[in-house]
Amino acid sequence: MAKKLTSREEDYSKWYNELVMQADLAQHSDVKGCMVIKPYGYAIWENMRDVLDKMFKDTGHQNAYFPLFIPKSYMSKEAKHVEGFAKECAVVTHYRLKNDENGGVVVDPDAKLEEELIVRPTSETIIWNTYRTWIQSYRDLPILINQWANVVRWEMRTRLFLRTAEFLWQEGHTAHATKAEAIEESEKMLHVYASFAEQWMAMPVVRGVKSESERFAGAEDTYCIEALMQDGKALQAGTSHFLGQNFAKAFDVKFADKTGKMEHVWASSWGVSTRLMGALIMTHSDDEGLVLPPKLAPIQVVMVPIYKNEEQLNALSEKMDELSAKLSDLGIRVKVDLDDTKKPGWKFAEYELKGVPVRIAMGPRDLENGSIEVARRDTKEKQGIPLEGAANFVADLLNKIQENLFLRSAAFRTEHTTEVQDYAEFKEVLEAKGGFVSAHWDGTAETEEKIKQETKATIRCIPLDAKEEEGKCIYTGAPSNKRVLFAKAY
Amino acid sequence: MAKKLTSREEDYSKWYNELVMQADLAQHSDVKGCMVIKPYGYAIWENMRDVLDKMFKDTGHQNAYFPLFIPKSYMSKEAKHVEGFAKECAVVTHYRLKNDENGGVVVDPDAKLEEELIVRPTSETIIWNTYRTWIQSYRDLPILINQWANVVRWEMRTRLFLRTAEFLWQEGHTAHATKAEAIEESEKMLHVYASFAEQWMAMPVVRGVKSESERFAGAEDTYCIEALMQDGKALQAGTSHFLGQNFAKAFDVKFADKTGKMEHVWASSWGVSTRLMGALIMTHSDDEGLVLPPKLAPIQVVMVPIYKNEEQLNALSEKMDELSAKLSDLGIRVKVDLDDTKKPGWKFAEYELKGVPVRIAMGPRDLENGSIEVARRDTKEKQGIPLEGAANFVADLLNKIQENLFLRSAAFRTEHTTEVQDYAEFKEVLEAKGGFVSAHWDGTAETEEKIKQETKATIRCIPLDAKEEEGKCIYTGAPSNKRVLFAKAY
Repeated sequence: MAKKLTSREEDYSKWYNELVMQADLAQHSDVKGCMVIKPYGYAIWENMRDVLDKMFKDTGHQNAYFPLFIPKSYMSKEAKHVEGFAKECAVVTHYRLKNDENGGVVVDPDAKLEEELIVRPTSETIIWNTYRTWIQSYRDLPILINQWANVVRWEMRTRLFLRTAEFLWQEGHTAHATKAEAIEESEKMLHVYASFAEQWMAMPVVRGVKSESERFAGAEDTYCIEALMQDGKALQAGTSHFLGQNFAKAFDVKFADKTGKMEHVWASSWGVSTRLMGALIMTHSDDEGLVLPPKLAPIQVVMVPIYKNEEQLNALSEKMDELSAKLSDLGIRVKVDLDDTKKPGWKFAEYELKGVPVRIAMGPRDLENGSIEVARRDTKEKQGIPLEGAANFVADLLNKIQENLFLRSAAFRTEHTTEVQDYAEFKEVLEAKGGFVSAHWDGTAETEEKIKQETKATIRCIPLDAKEEEGKCIYTGAPSNKRVLFAKAY
Repeated sequence: MAKKLTSREEDYSKWYNELVMQADLAQHSDVKGCMVIKPYGYAIWENMRDVLDKMFKDTGHQNAYFPLFIPKSYMSKEAKHVEGFAKECAVVTHYRLKNDENGGVVVDPDAKLEEELIVRPTSETIIWNTYRTWIQSYRDLPILINQWANVVRWEMRTRLFLRTAEFLWQEGHTAHATKAEAIEESEKMLHVYASFAEQWMAMPVVRGVKSESERFAGAEDTYCIEALMQDGKALQAGTSHFLGQNFAKAFDVKFADKTGKMEHVWASSWGVSTRLMGALIMTHSDDEGLVLPPKLAPIQVVMVPIYKNEEQLNALSEKMDELSAKLSDLGIRVKVDLDDTKKPGWKFAEYELKGVPVRIAMGPRDLENGSIEVARRDTKEKQGIPLEGAANFVADLLNKIQENLFLRSAAFRTEHTTEVQDYAEFKEVLEAKGGFVSAHWDGTAETEEKIKQETKATIRCIPLDAKEEEGKCIYTGAPSNKRVLFAKAY
C-alpha cells in the first residue's frame, strides 16, 4: 500500500503522476517517452476499447491492419501532412546488428536501408497508398475501416497517458464517392466519440470544430470533442477529420463514377487514444485516488470481510459468495477479497486508490443482523442495508454513481465556462478561474496566435451548437458572429 | 470475382498465395516484408484472438502493454538471446526528419539517438527489465501477464502470414517463485494452445518439446505444438518456453522467499501469432478456396436468393429474414446477400472462395414447397430440407462441419505420419510421401544438423507422449530410447 497522495490543491500535476503510479495504471519505462501500461490500467483501456470497437462495428466499420513502417518518401507526398508529422518521429535506418569485440552488439553498417522507414505517427499515407489498389469504381466505395494500433510521435516532455512517444489508439480511415458523404462520416464519428465520452466515461464534452491553425495536418476540417479537467484545463479527447481529396490526390486514388468519369476519392479519418485514460483520471478522481465510472471499472464491486477468527471468516465468506453470485448474474464485475495477509483498513484504502465504485463490508454483527455496509466511492457515503435484496440495491447504486459522476462533472464544467466581453475580462477569468472562456474572435490566425502568446490559451473549438450572435473580437474589436471556446489545454 | 485458383496439386505455394489474395485475407505492402491484413482476414484473426484472450484470462492471466522499442544494450544481456534475436531487426537511429531543398524530407543528422533502439522482435528483455521494479518478495509472485502486440523480425524471403517482417502476436511472460511452478506454467499454456488449435481451428497438433538446437534463444526448454499441412510439411503453430532463471539473472530480478533469502525469479514465456492464419488456411482449404471451421468463420451461414423478378425477391427476402433472425437467436453469424448487382452463380463462387461453412439458397420453387437448399463448404454436399425447423438443422450442421474438419485433418495426419527404421527408408518416405517421419535419433545436435543438411528435414519435436522404446539412431546407429518427429517444415 502506497503512501498518501499529494493533494490536488497542493500540486495537481504531482497528484496526477502519483495517482497513475500508485493506482498501478502505468509507469515510465527505461525507453525515453515510452510507458508501460500495467494490468490494472490496461484493463480499463480494454473496457474502453471493447465499447468503442462495438460502436464502430455498429456504425458499419470493419477492422484491418496496416504496416507499422512508412517509407520516408510517403510522408512528404501530402504537403501539409509532412509539416505536421514528419518532424518528430522514429526513423529506422538499419535492419541488422552484429557482435562487437566486447560481447555487445553494434549496428551493422552494411545493413543500411536504401530508403529509411518511419515508425507510423498516423497512417493516412500508408493506408491511402493501399487504397489505390482497392478502389477502381464507385462500387468499391465506401470503404469504412478502423485500425487498432500503436503509433510513435517523438516527445521530449512526456506525461503518462497524456503525452507519450508511443501510444495506443484507433484510427478510422474511410473513403467515399462524394464530399457530402465524407463530411457526414466525419460528423457521425464525432458524435460516436461524444456519446462514448458522455455515456461511458461520464465525461461531458463540447462538440466542435477546430480553427484552421489547430487543424490536423492534411485535413480540410477537424472536428473535436473537448473536455474540461478539474484543474480548469481543457483536454482534446478525440478528433475526426474531413480530409477532402487531399490524400487521394497525393496517392493518386481515383474511382470511376456511375457515368464512367474518373474522380478523386473523398476521405475522413478519426482517432482516440490512450490519452482518454488521462482524461478519465483527471475528470473524476480525488485526493484519495482514482474514481472510476462503473461502466468502465474492471472491478465494479469489492467485498471485504471483517473478522476476528476463522469461524467468522468462513461464515462471512459464505454469505459474500452468495451475494457475489447474485451480482455476477446481474452482469456485475465483482471481487471478494479474502486475502488473509491484509487488514480491512488497508484494503479499504487500496480499493479507494483503485477507484472501485462500490465497496461492501460485512462483519460479525452484520452476520447476526443480516446486513451489509455499502460504501460508494464517488461521494464516500456509507450506509447499512439488509443483505436480502442487496444485489438489486447495488445494481441500482452503480447506475446512480455513473449518473452522479456525469452530473458532477457537467456542473463543474458549467461553473467553469465563462462568457467574457473584452480582453481584460478574458485574461482575468483565465487567471483567476480557468476553464472554458467563451469569447468573440475575429476569425484570423494572427489574433489567435497573439492571444496564445500572451495568455497561453488556445481556441479549443468553435462549438457546433454556437449561437449566431453579433459581437466584437475581444482582441481586435473586429466584428464576429459567434463565440468560440478558449482555454489553456493539455 | 477473381479467376480460378491454381490447384494445390499443380503448385501448392502458388495456390496459397493466390488464395490469400483472392479471398481478401491479406496483401503485401510497399514496405518490404510487411503485410496489410484486410478486413476479412482480420475478422478471422479477431475471432482467434478473442477466444485465446478468454482462455488466457480463464487461466488467471492479465493483459498489459510494454514499449515497442528496446534499448540496443538490453539485447545482449542474455547471452543466447542475443544470438537468436539481435541479428535481423529494425534499428531506430534517429528521431527527426527535416526538409530538404527538393520538397522532400531527409533524416536530421543532429537528431541521432545516443543509444539505438531496436523494434521489439520479442519482449523478454524489456519486460524483465520492468519486472525488476515489480518484484521484491514472494508475495509479488506469480506474475501472470500477456501482451497483444506487433513485433518485427527482419525477413528477406517473406510469405503472407507465414513469414513476415512485422506480425501480430501475443506473448505471455510469467514470473514464479519456483522452478516447478514455471515449468507447470509453460506446460499449461502449451495445452491451452493445443486445445485452441484442436477445438477451435479444428487442427490436430502434436504436443512436444524441441531439441536443444531448435529451442528459443534464452530458454531452458521449448514446448511446441506442431501441425501438418496438406502438402506434407509441418508448421510450428505455437511455442511455450521454460526460461529458467536466465532472464532474471540477466536483468537482476530477485525476490525474498518466506525465509527472507534472496533468489532469482523463474520464468516462462509463450506465444502464438498471425502465423496461425497460415496454418488455418493450409489445414483445411481446397482448390475452390478457403475452408473455415465454423467456430472461427466471420460469416457462418450465407443466404442467397434466386429470383427472376422483384416480387419473388421480396417474398424470398421475407422468408430469409425470418430464418436469419432464428439463426441469430441461436448465436449464429449469418448474412443475407440481397445484392442485386450480382448473379447467384457469382455469389456461390465468392462464398466458396471465402470459406463460408454453410450456404443456403432459396428459389421460387422452394417458396412454393416451403424448402431451402443447404450446401456445406467442407464436403460440397447439397441437400433440400424443409424451411420449418431449418434453424436447428443448420446449427447442428455447423457442429458437424467443425467435427468433420477436425477428423479429416486428423486422418490426413495419421496417414502422413510414418515410423521408419533406417535412414534409407527415412529419406524415401520424406521424398515420396512427406509428412511426419517418426524415427530414432541419438540425441546429438551433430546428427540433427547432418540430417537437416542432407534432407532438409528438421526435428519438429520430441512428442510429450512418446513411448519408451529401445531403438537405434537412423543416422549413427547409436542407442535411443524414444522416437522423435522429423519433417520438412514451414
